[in-house]
Amino acid sequence: MMALMKIAVYPGSFDPITLGHVDIIERISLLFDQVVVLISESSQKASLFTAEERKTLVEKALAHKKNVKVDIHSGLTVDYVKQGGTQVIVRGLRAVGDFEYEMTMAHMNRQLDASVETMIIFANPKYQYISSRGVKEVAKHQGRLQGLVPEMVIPALEKKMKGQK
Amino acid sequence: MMALMKIAVYPGSFDPITLGHVDIIERISLLFDQVVVLISESSQKASLFTAEERKTLVEKALAHKKNVKVDIHSGLTVDYVKQGGTQVIVRGLRAVGDFEYEMTMAHMNRQLDASVETMIIFANPKYQYISSRGVKEVAKHQGRLQGLVPEMVIPALEKKMKGQK
Amino acid sequence: MMALMKIAVYPGSFDPITLGHVDIIERISLLFDQVVVLISESSQKASLFTAEERKTLVEKALAHKKNVKVDIHSGLTVDYVKQGGTQVIVRGLRAVGDFEYEMTMAHMNRQLDASVETMIIFANPKYQYISSRGVKEVAKHQGRLQGLVPEMVIPALEKKMKGQK
Amino acid sequence: MMALMKIAVYPGSFDPITLGHVDIIERISLLFDQVVVLISESSQKASLFTAEERKTLVEKALAHKKNVKVDIHSGLTVDYVKQGGTQVIVRGLRAVGDFEYEMTMAHMNRQLDASVETMIIFANPKYQYISSRGVKEVAKHQGRLQGLVPEMVIPALEKKMKGQK
Amino acid sequence: MMALMKIAVYPGSFDPITLGHVDIIERISLLFDQVVVLISESSQKASLFTAEERKTLVEKALAHKKNVKVDIHSGLTVDYVKQGGTQVIVRGLRAVGDFEYEMTMAHMNRQLDASVETMIIFANPKYQYISSRGVKEVAKHQGRLQGLVPEMVIPALEKKMKGQK
Amino acid sequence: MMALMKIAVYPGSFDPITLGHVDIIERISLLFDQVVVLISESSQKASLFTAEERKTLVEKALAHKKNVKVDIHSGLTVDYVKQGGTQVIVRGLRAVGDFEYEMTMAHMNRQLDASVETMIIFANPKYQYISSRGVKEVAKHQGRLQGLVPEMVIPALEKKMKGQK
Repeated sequence: MMALMKIAVYPGSFDPITLGHVDIIERISLLFDQVVVLISESSQKASLFTAEERKTLVEKALAHKKNVKVDIHSGLTVDYVKQGGTQVIVRGLRAVGDFEYEMTMAHMNRQLDASVETMIIFANPKYQYISSRGVKEVAKHQGRLQGLVPEMVIPALEKKMKGQK
Repeated sequence: MMALMKIAVYPGSFDPITLGHVDIIERISLLFDQVVVLISESSQKASLFTAEERKTLVEKALAHKKNVKVDIHSGLTVDYVKQGGTQVIVRGLRAVGDFEYEMTMAHMNRQLDASVETMIIFANPKYQYISSRGVKEVAKHQGRLQGLVPEMVIPALEKKMKGQK
Repeated sequence: MMALMKIAVYPGSFDPITLGHVDIIERISLLFDQVVVLISESSQKASLFTAEERKTLVEKALAHKKNVKVDIHSGLTVDYVKQGGTQVIVRGLRAVGDFEYEMTMAHMNRQLDASVETMIIFANPKYQYISSRGVKEVAKHQGRLQGLVPEMVIPALEKKMKGQK
Repeated sequence: MMALMKIAVYPGSFDPITLGHVDIIERISLLFDQVVVLISESSQKASLFTAEERKTLVEKALAHKKNVKVDIHSGLTVDYVKQGGTQVIVRGLRAVGDFEYEMTMAHMNRQLDASVETMIIFANPKYQYISSRGVKEVAKHQGRLQGLVPEMVIPALEKKMKGQK
Repeated sequence: MMALMKIAVYPGSFDPITLGHVDIIERISLLFDQVVVLISESSQKASLFTAEERKTLVEKALAHKKNVKVDIHSGLTVDYVKQGGTQVIVRGLRAVGDFEYEMTMAHMNRQLDASVETMIIFANPKYQYISSRGVKEVAKHQGRLQGLVPEMVIPALEKKMKGQK
Repeated sequence: MMALMKIAVYPGSFDPITLGHVDIIERISLLFDQVVVLISESSQKASLFTAEERKTLVEKALAHKKNVKVDIHSGLTVDYVKQGGTQVIVRGLRAVGDFEYEMTMAHMNRQLDASVETMIIFANPKYQYISSRGVKEVAKHQGRLQGLVPEMVIPALEKKMKGQK
């Protein structure tokens, strides 16, 4: 049967992409016709990697998924969603503590544009404890990065950390 | 562009269907090609309405949505999902307190069948306080049911409550 | 300055009243002109003490507070509030886990009658772990009841427990 | 019957006041004889509007409520409460996540002065997702502010945002 | 260096023991000199397996750990701890939702006997979604039990389920 | 019976130590043969007291406990645990809100070194609302510090606050 193409937007900082992100993107890519990984560029929050560097790392980590593309956006996510013709924002949740923030954002986005829906997918239990922030803390103290981020992210992280000293 | 049809299953007790359920089903029906409202029949939990009565009320309340169908299932939801060719279970969340139960169920279902995904959609804030259980409590004490359940559910509830005395 | 009398209703099962309840009632009695401790009589939930017995125990425990009265009600709390001319339902919260239930009930009550407000007061940290249910579990196994319930409740509890064997 | 006047203090940043704040202040003003909206001035947290500007916006938004007054305070809220002769601090809660912070503050305030009580009132579900912080984020990206803040706050917000560029 | 022997009590229903329980017991057995798995026998809560059957299954599943013993107790856990000369109750937590119950129980136990401490250990993320209750639900509907319970529990569960029909 | 010595590490900022910390350290010192209070030195988070000053205050407050020693560490806690030959990290929890952070840290630490376990102990209800951050806020506004921190911390705090003006 024919059907309209369904596009999902998966927004985040991805500073840097972790194995938890990769798992969620792979799973979303099976549920929607296309997935846009949307790297948000914030003028306020300092990031370790530039938006362009983060984009390159996500693209390398997801090179095997043909229906995944990566984009950079500064501003409200709803504005991107409207111009891009997508139907739904997908967020991955690792913990109860993130739930209310996501619910608040979802309701706020619907107030700004009633046609923008948000759906939640649960992080894989085995990656539940991995956050970009935790990964950077480990990298800063030369801890073991295997099992936390995709292989090609490890040298990029180590290089950044050296540059910061 | 052509794409595979995406089917979502929305399981629950629906004893009876509330305005919160109707809002969620309408919103899911815009995101997926087809929605199956799956009424779970439990041998353990006593329900006010029979599974057949609940099915009829859901069908009447969603008669205006052409891509919504209603089904009854006893047993594990994953078994229904596999035989029905659907890709995703959708759950509506009203509160943080339900989050962990849903996360546990989602992981359990993936353990039983790795191909079964679960996604969450947030209840509309204006229906957030409405539960089937609360509705039955109000009906039992002849409280006002307008604004809580679809209009055609009100006489059905009132009739049941009279029968229980 | 003159002002309208403010009445607060404090509803609950009080099966039996604990030192945590006493502390909350004493504190509410300083904030409102009158407090009505409302013992809810439920046809569904089995209680250890009858509603009349619970009323007597609450009255004895609060005999020193002149602006506290005790009443029994079966049915929706909003119905009692309307007929009694009170303005606000007060609930004592011991833990985060009770928060969403209270929020749901408060919104449901406002839907049933827009003029009925609910306010929350926090349990004293030193009584935070005391619940009527926990107290009954301790009494059943002849544990120490001092520091959990008012003195005059102890013989009443012990008598009930003997009667149950 | 005659009774002592009951005064409630409703403290916050109000940077700026939202429709959620207005709804809560209107509801508190029906439960207490007088409400003091207390704008806290912090030397540490940078605010978009000055304390004086925030006070003016709150006064305009609540001009129709005769028993509401607005005040500015830097320092511990308990100190203001004691000198002002008020009996209770009222806080509006939008989400479970804020609950523990409020409980901690309430207990801390009682430790500093045992006569200072705190009560909680639940935000209206339809305003539950609105925070001053979210509103500023929307304003920064020229999003739609109608339905989030009182009408007279919109031009003030837009003017501030222009000034920041 | 010589030191006093430290004994931990790990109480629960174990109806039946899961792979999550086994993982926690193995980890506790490395932190304390001896672990007592305490099977609580409740007169109120119906169990699928008798206390004796549950004890046998736990003993078989932990036969490889020499410092683990299994015991049955009805009544308050504090009473067992006192008579057994142990110093600490250990509880495994799978989710935030269980946290407050555990905190309440820990404080209640300290009120009953100030020398009884409770410590918490986190369930392994890969077993986080496994509960005895969920396992019984899967077994009832002939779902796959591998990866949820120890191998020797599977035939015991299947036999019980047949007996219930 | 002879047994291996069990050492627990209790890490934190202790900026400054509160009565809640003292209570937890005293209780842990009864459950383990030795307790190491580990003061973490962070290059990012500004502290009121230097690491050396914090160490001195902890040592004075715990001078009566012979099996408690204090140490300073910058870097990952797991690295300290490994080199120190200790078996377990102990964390004190005051509230549900801290639970997920602790669970995430515990899992992350086990990923970095599978032999490092984390256990949780609950703060005493009567100290539950006390945090180092809250104490500093009170000190800044000349509030009453008795009942919040050990006596010898009060002059140290007052001196620091004067120095900041």
